[in-house]
Amino acid sequence: MTSLLDQGCSPQLGILEISTGIRSGRFTARAAIEHTLARIERLDGRVGAFTAVLAERALARADAIDARHAAGKPVGALAGVPFAVKNLYDIAGLVTLAGSRINRDNPPATRDAALIERLEGQGAICVGALNMGEYAYDFTGQNTHGVPSRNPHALDHLAGGSSSGPASAVAAGFVPLALGSDTNGAIRVPASLCGLFGMKPTFGRLSRARSFPFVASLDHMGPLARSARDLAFAYDAMQGPDPDDPSCAQRPAQPALFELGRGIEGLRIAVAGGYFHPEGNRDALDAVRRCAKALDASETIEIPQAAVARAAAFLITITEGGALHRNRLRERAKDFAPGVRDRLIAGNMVPATWVNAAHRFRHWFRAEMHRIFERIDLILAPATPCRAPRIDATTIEVGGQAMPLRANLGLFTQPISFIGLPVVTVPLWNEGEKLPIGVQIIAPAWREDLALRAAWALETAGVVRAPVADIE
Amino acid sequence: MTSLLDQGCSPQLGILEISTGIRSGRFTARAAIEHTLARIERLDGRVGAFTAVLAERALARADAIDARHAAGKPVGALAGVPFAVKNLYDIAGLVTLAGSRINRDNPPATRDAALIERLEGQGAICVGALNMGEYAYDFTGQNTHGVPSRNPHALDHLAGGSSSGPASAVAAGFVPLALGSDTNGAIRVPASLCGLFGMKPTFGRLSRARSFPFVASLDHMGPLARSARDLAFAYDAMQGPDPDDPSCAQRPAQPALFELGRGIEGLRIAVAGGYFHPEGNRDALDAVRRCAKALDASETIEIPQAAVARAAAFLITITEGGALHRNRLRERAKDFAPGVRDRLIAGNMVPATWVNAAHRFRHWFRAEMHRIFERIDLILAPATPCRAPRIDATTIEVGGQAMPLRANLGLFTQPISFIGLPVVTVPLWNEGEKLPIGVQIIAPAWREDLALRAAWALETAGVVRAPVADIE
Repeated sequence: MTSLLDQGCSPQLGILEISTGIRSGRFTARAAIEHTLARIERLDGRVGAFTAVLAERALARADAIDARHAAGKPVGALAGVPFAVKNLYDIAGLVTLAGSRINRDNPPATRDAALIERLEGQGAICVGALNMGEYAYDFTGQNTHGVPSRNPHALDHLAGGSSSGPASAVAAGFVPLALGSDTNGAIRVPASLCGLFGMKPTFGRLSRARSFPFVASLDHMGPLARSARDLAFAYDAMQGPDPDDPSCAQRPAQPALFELGRGIEGLRIAVAGGYFHPEGNRDALDAVRRCAKALDASETIEIPQAAVARAAAFLITITEGGALHRNRLRERAKDFAPGVRDRLIAGNMVPATWVNAAHRFRHWFRAEMHRIFERIDLILAPATPCRAPRIDATTIEVGGQAMPLRANLGLFTQPISFIGLPVVTVPLWNEGEKLPIGVQIIAPAWREDLALRAAWALETAGVVRAPVADIE
Repeated sequence: MTSLLDQGCSPQLGILEISTGIRSGRFTARAAIEHTLARIERLDGRVGAFTAVLAERALARADAIDARHAAGKPVGALAGVPFAVKNLYDIAGLVTLAGSRINRDNPPATRDAALIERLEGQGAICVGALNMGEYAYDFTGQNTHGVPSRNPHALDHLAGGSSSGPASAVAAGFVPLALGSDTNGAIRVPASLCGLFGMKPTFGRLSRARSFPFVASLDHMGPLARSARDLAFAYDAMQGPDPDDPSCAQRPAQPALFELGRGIEGLRIAVAGGYFHPEGNRDALDAVRRCAKALDASETIEIPQAAVARAAAFLITITEGGALHRNRLRERAKDFAPGVRDRLIAGNMVPATWVNAAHRFRHWFRAEMHRIFERIDLILAPATPCRAPRIDATTIEVGGQAMPLRANLGLFTQPISFIGLPVVTVPLWNEGEKLPIGVQIIAPAWREDLALRAAWALETAGVVRAPVADIE
């Protein structure tokens, strides 16, 4: 028997390479999944990406795909592509942990989350559930109830959170695709710290059916991958209304993949200044500058009242999250991580009129951004203030000041998800640096295609890239 | 010169009588308006309905209508019909008081409220602004900043609030039509206490553009009149989307007037039990029973968790209202009536998670009521627990217990507006009783026509009626 690598499988392969490899007969879906499972088995002990691996289920699906293929039947655009999901997505037969200790006592889910069903409907194969910060209220990726996810590019550094497992699984080359969720930056922050392409679609674009919530008015589901093209592949497979999720927009799917080839011609791209341009955060500013140069973005625009937007997002987060967990706080306060518990308790004491003011400000802020997007197509901004900090760090520098690390990793992501704008983050590397840093490409509502076009243009120009980490 | 009454004007005339009187040449619009102005001038000192009378403007419009009519041009379905509005509706050139002392310092409105424009577009004539409880946060109609509106049927009794002026103006025969607003019952309570037909349409049905708000997610605009037919006339003239009010539904108008003749044939009508059936409140229960009998409503249904619905409406009211007035509370606390101020201050201290729970309950409650309305077309319930209390009363009896009057006049209205259901209240009188009491006819969302059909059926059967009060 030839080794799996001899069959052409490799941790570097993306969605298109795997599915065409399988369809062309270069390797089987079983080989791809066996390769995936073996690599997870061998190396995830160092990374801490997975909380459950679905070997049996995944192999059965792989065999079914191989059988269909052998019979000459269609196998889907994502045939045999392994993927994994943050453990707040329901997986039939598993308990949906949402990173918590408390949820361990829940019964197993009876049906897969909607987005898993959509991806598997196109032939993809879910191989497991991924680590995450407790109840998604986290930017570090450090889960105190299990093994912390580590940054595959430097195992003593943070992966970022709360979608830490999705980021570390893709960066470690376990899977080419993972699904995360982003409330205030939880896809974009780990994508930046782990050097990946990450996508937070427009609020309401992707179904949240059968996932564990955090903040109803801010939660977004989305993919992480090692190529903008793979993001588009996965995004197109997941789009479209879902009667099981009333918050999912009743808009027809707007496929983005075929738009990639249009490049950036005609796109008016600007750089966010002011709040998003912290002097002293050289790595973040350099990364934005390099993207701006490649995209011919010479204008700087001001996103008005970004700090207020962040404060308002914070108020909505802490109160909606606090309400969601109120009964758990009453009954099992000790089973929360202290940092999560204390913020959620505080959220139960915020006056409603403050939140009311936050909602009114949101209304105003959305209108202002809408006005900016009448003359600009895309806005570039840092994804994080810095590269991945060490796991034991407690502060980061922002604008020359030491700030608490936990909250401030989301400094630049929070004002954007606050009004549901779609963002693609792209990864940049400096010569000689072992750790990457990300840039946000922010588009108007419902125009994910524009952000993906710019990300793909940067990728084909070699400005951004997402290599598999060397963890052997 | 013949007297106005000789010309056929009378305080008893309704919308159809006035507009056909004018179109048939029986009297002129000027005669109708002069008659109206003279009666207000002569008698409103006793009632306290008006805070401003627009004699000049109204007469000019009357002359314009008479001139159009003389020239053979169309004059509109409401030609020459005088009406007046609660003083939270903008009237160009007047300060929009919203019942407050503080708003006196505002500049005058520059344009009429949308609903005034719609009525005047059909030939109606606005003759003035009407008294109301301060900032609409009131069920009594007692305004401490000016003359209190009195109940025309017994001047030492409450008119009910906060649309006290609209109710007392129509009951006193000053106008056949007035516009009020209903957040928790502020049309239905005074309609019940003053013996009128009142309509709270579905939330989002009528434009709120250019009116002073109270609780954005609960405020409804609506008419009061002395006939269900007149309600339908006014309602049809005001319906339809309005780009100036984003909360106004993008639904085409669904005219109700021509539906009236269909009667109640085929309608499944039930009586609300439990919460809405307080033993001991004989007047209220008798009134419901008489309507039920006439409408052949033999079934009793249970509106689930009505007390919780009321509590949740209270939380949303106090916090949204508190947020609206926060700056005024900071800067001019002493200029509020104490009872209004203290509740609004309290509203600024309610935790957001309580309100969040209220919103989640609202979602559940709406779904439950939707289920009930799958097999029932209309529900009958009391409008108020009792007839109009004396002005100096502080308690009312509910279910055999003395309860604070202020809040509990809205006991039966609040759970219904909480989820925006349309309601028509109808007035009943007992032989020998000088004061009336109202019954709510509650319909499913967007089915005002059903409630109006039942109200009209009761009116034509003589079960309900709205006579002009004898205040000469």
